[in-house]
Amino acid sequence: MAAIPVEAFYLTPGATGSLQQQIRAMVTQGILAGRFRPGARMPSSRGLAGHLGVSRITVTLAYSDLVSSDYLTSAGRSGYFVSGTAPLAPEFPASAPPAEAIDFKGLTGGRFSSVVRVERPDDWDRYPWPFIYGQADPTLFDHQNWRQCALRALGKRDFAALTSDYYERDDPLLLQELVRSILPRRGIAAREEEVLLTLGAQNALWIAAMALLGPGRRAVVENPGYPAWRAIVAATGAEAVPVDVDALGLPVEGLAGDVVFTTPSHQCPTNATMPVERRVALLEAAERQGFVIVEDDYEFEMSFLKPVAPALKSLDRGGRVIYAGSFSKSVFPGLRLGYLVGPPGFIAEARSLRGLMLKHPPGHIQRTMAYFLGLGHYDALVNRMKNAYRRRRQVMAEAIATEGLEVAGQGGFGGSSFWMRAGAGVDTEELALRLRADGVLIEPGRAFFAGAGPRNYYRLAYSSIAPQRIAEGVARIARALAPGAARR
Amino acid sequence: MAAIPVEAFYLTPGATGSLQQQIRAMVTQGILAGRFRPGARMPSSRGLAGHLGVSRITVTLAYSDLVSSDYLTSAGRSGYFVSGTAPLAPEFPASAPPAEAIDFKGLTGGRFSSVVRVERPDDWDRYPWPFIYGQADPTLFDHQNWRQCALRALGKRDFAALTSDYYERDDPLLLQELVRSILPRRGIAAREEEVLLTLGAQNALWIAAMALLGPGRRAVVENPGYPAWRAIVAATGAEAVPVDVDALGLPVEGLAGDVVFTTPSHQCPTNATMPVERRVALLEAAERQGFVIVEDDYEFEMSFLKPVAPALKSLDRGGRVIYAGSFSKSVFPGLRLGYLVGPPGFIAEARSLRGLMLKHPPGHIQRTMAYFLGLGHYDALVNRMKNAYRRRRQVMAEAIATEGLEVAGQGGFGGSSFWMRAGAGVDTEELALRLRADGVLIEPGRAFFAGAGPRNYYRLAYSSIAPQRIAEGVARIARALAPGAARR
Repeated sequence: MAAIPVEAFYLTPGATGSLQQQIRAMVTQGILAGRFRPGARMPSSRGLAGHLGVSRITVTLAYSDLVSSDYLTSAGRSGYFVSGTAPLAPEFPASAPPAEAIDFKGLTGGRFSSVVRVERPDDWDRYPWPFIYGQADPTLFDHQNWRQCALRALGKRDFAALTSDYYERDDPLLLQELVRSILPRRGIAAREEEVLLTLGAQNALWIAAMALLGPGRRAVVENPGYPAWRAIVAATGAEAVPVDVDALGLPVEGLAGDVVFTTPSHQCPTNATMPVERRVALLEAAERQGFVIVEDDYEFEMSFLKPVAPALKSLDRGGRVIYAGSFSKSVFPGLRLGYLVGPPGFIAEARSLRGLMLKHPPGHIQRTMAYFLGLGHYDALVNRMKNAYRRRRQVMAEAIATEGLEVAGQGGFGGSSFWMRAGAGVDTEELALRLRADGVLIEPGRAFFAGAGPRNYYRLAYSSIAPQRIAEGVARIARALAPGAARR
Repeated sequence: MAAIPVEAFYLTPGATGSLQQQIRAMVTQGILAGRFRPGARMPSSRGLAGHLGVSRITVTLAYSDLVSSDYLTSAGRSGYFVSGTAPLAPEFPASAPPAEAIDFKGLTGGRFSSVVRVERPDDWDRYPWPFIYGQADPTLFDHQNWRQCALRALGKRDFAALTSDYYERDDPLLLQELVRSILPRRGIAAREEEVLLTLGAQNALWIAAMALLGPGRRAVVENPGYPAWRAIVAATGAEAVPVDVDALGLPVEGLAGDVVFTTPSHQCPTNATMPVERRVALLEAAERQGFVIVEDDYEFEMSFLKPVAPALKSLDRGGRVIYAGSFSKSVFPGLRLGYLVGPPGFIAEARSLRGLMLKHPPGHIQRTMAYFLGLGHYDALVNRMKNAYRRRRQVMAEAIATEGLEVAGQGGFGGSSFWMRAGAGVDTEELALRLRADGVLIEPGRAFFAGAGPRNYYRLAYSSIAPQRIAEGVARIARALAPGAARR
């Protein structure tokens, strides 16, 4: 069997990973692609090291590692060979891509893909003035402690928790942290059978909607309101009934539906906080009319102007409130970890549904989050975010006042954004496109409105922009809104 | 402000984490619970170290760490104090658990919770003879390399990938590995727009069903077949049409439905492999009758008796096959990572649906898997599992022959289980209960059958049992099946 020449190996400039990892990858890929056959002799470690310009020990370590995972065998002084039992390349050619005979969008009625989305470029972090909502700010995140917790959760001790199929259960440690430490801060005393972990708040809302809605049922949605909830209602086949919010959030009069969705802590997107009297009235209406309330308690941690009010769920004596919370907003969005709180009968149905849909959130992430909570890192992080947001909000309020822009809703507790109104004739989608070309990202408001809503609203978030960039960004928005700017 | 006495601290026997972490947790929990108020003086490091019986440096390190996350402030020689800006305890009492006024099971029609499940105890790993299916065997898993890949994915360099909201996208690195390295082994040449990552194979099937089915539509299900698929069909409101499988898998004649679900590589649970002629006939029938095929290619990696046949999807010229695959079976079940392959029009709908349902699988897990694949660890792991399963299967086949038990389906390619038939009068659910008391776990077959199927089938898996335990376990099953055993 011929020897494999050193020329079969080259380091790709800019490749990630250590040199040892890169050598390992070249060997395994060569074997799996069928280029290096079983029995073939590898280049000597001295020869390959010279060819690649790396130290001989690096090559030797990579080779030893490949022996231990059965890609190579070592024949002592004769060198290294591709193992006779190495993973094999497939023995049949790959097929050509098939034709597309079926109109899948027609099949689903475009039920999922025809949703109006808040337009956000994928490379938002390359823009100098990203007034963008819901992304992590890496300068605030506690990367080191998260890494420590993840490492601990990757240890031998947690191995079972990490790798088992939990079937329908949750990580008992995380459940315990949630029930003992997080929910009491919202005034909620829940037992473990009243809690279900989900893959983020979006997944919590989806599960609630799938369990509570369907064709022939009606769901009240706030208008303007969280666009994903309207889309989720439509996906279940239920009818969405938009109700206009006022300065205190969702009004209680004339609510007609099987399920009422609301964001009492910070109305999305106006930031209004529903006062206690209205909350009590809403619960009384639910009792009287028999509807279920889904409370999305998003951003409750970001109350830095006044202490946060207890959740609507904490006032719920009739077992009519389904509460959705999230760690993804306050830790980082890519975490995908949230939860539902509700009566045991509801949670049992939701748990079965989650089991069919995705089994359970990955064990490793649940355990990491449990450690991050248990060691107090979560609270420290939230505290740091609140302090940063408070500063940014102040800078932003000043810049908005200086530039004479109009705030339509800002909330009394904090949050991470301003809800803004431009002049009546302004189309903020067109404005957003012009600003994007100028390096500024804003969120046009149209996606928040049901049907043909006004087009002159927009949202400015301060969660992902550095404070020293805020003034210039707001100035650019003001310039773009100045009379005649669109035609310049 | 009074000092906090050392008696407020005690080490819990058996607590996890380092001493430093335990001290940190005691302090943060005291502060968050409102027991330690801002301004209160902490015990001296010497005093607390003496009280707890730990070294003084451990206490000092814990205190410094708490200063850096703003729980404590250091006043030089005067000691440490609870920070004035420490995270605060809530100012309202937690509510009592509410009553349960609504019949949620009635509301959902018990659509999700009334599914017949394969009965498996949560503590299956405490049984000496677990012939249980679908759990990880920690002795085979490559824990160290998985940990290395996870660590790399937790590094600063990957921070953005780890923490961003991907919106509807997948990790480009993992997508690339899948398209270039995994799918070609199944004979599938797919472009990136034909692939969607999911939260495990279960989630892939759920997404396919939600996109393709609904009230008024019909889905062919294999009988016996994968119970979760029947449950998923029912949850969409579609009608499930069971079709009896034969020794070659799903027969092609008389299939009547909008969607046909099949497991051609290893029929679940009989392990039959569908021959190529029948696959071609199935695709022709799909073309003629206009149905869509959902192919669950479960366990394709575990072909150790003969080389694996290409996937049904690889023969699909008409764009009628939706292919579901998984990493959770071959890496570990708690991973929750799978994928769908289909025509771009289908993947676009499925992607929007996944966006509404859960946004995307967690970024960190996607990136870790991409590294695990790219460095060849995945193939090495699969190779190791195949070797282990080959040995176990042989031991098990011998034990079954020795004890005279009847195999109803074993497959010609490998897999991880035998499909078994007991005498006509045996109820395997009753048998499983008796065996459980004897330390043996088997899976009764009833859950695999639609409606009132036979009760004398059962499944014996060898993926989680050590080879040296197999003979005794099988002998115990034989004893339990012996005439008169039930009444002993």
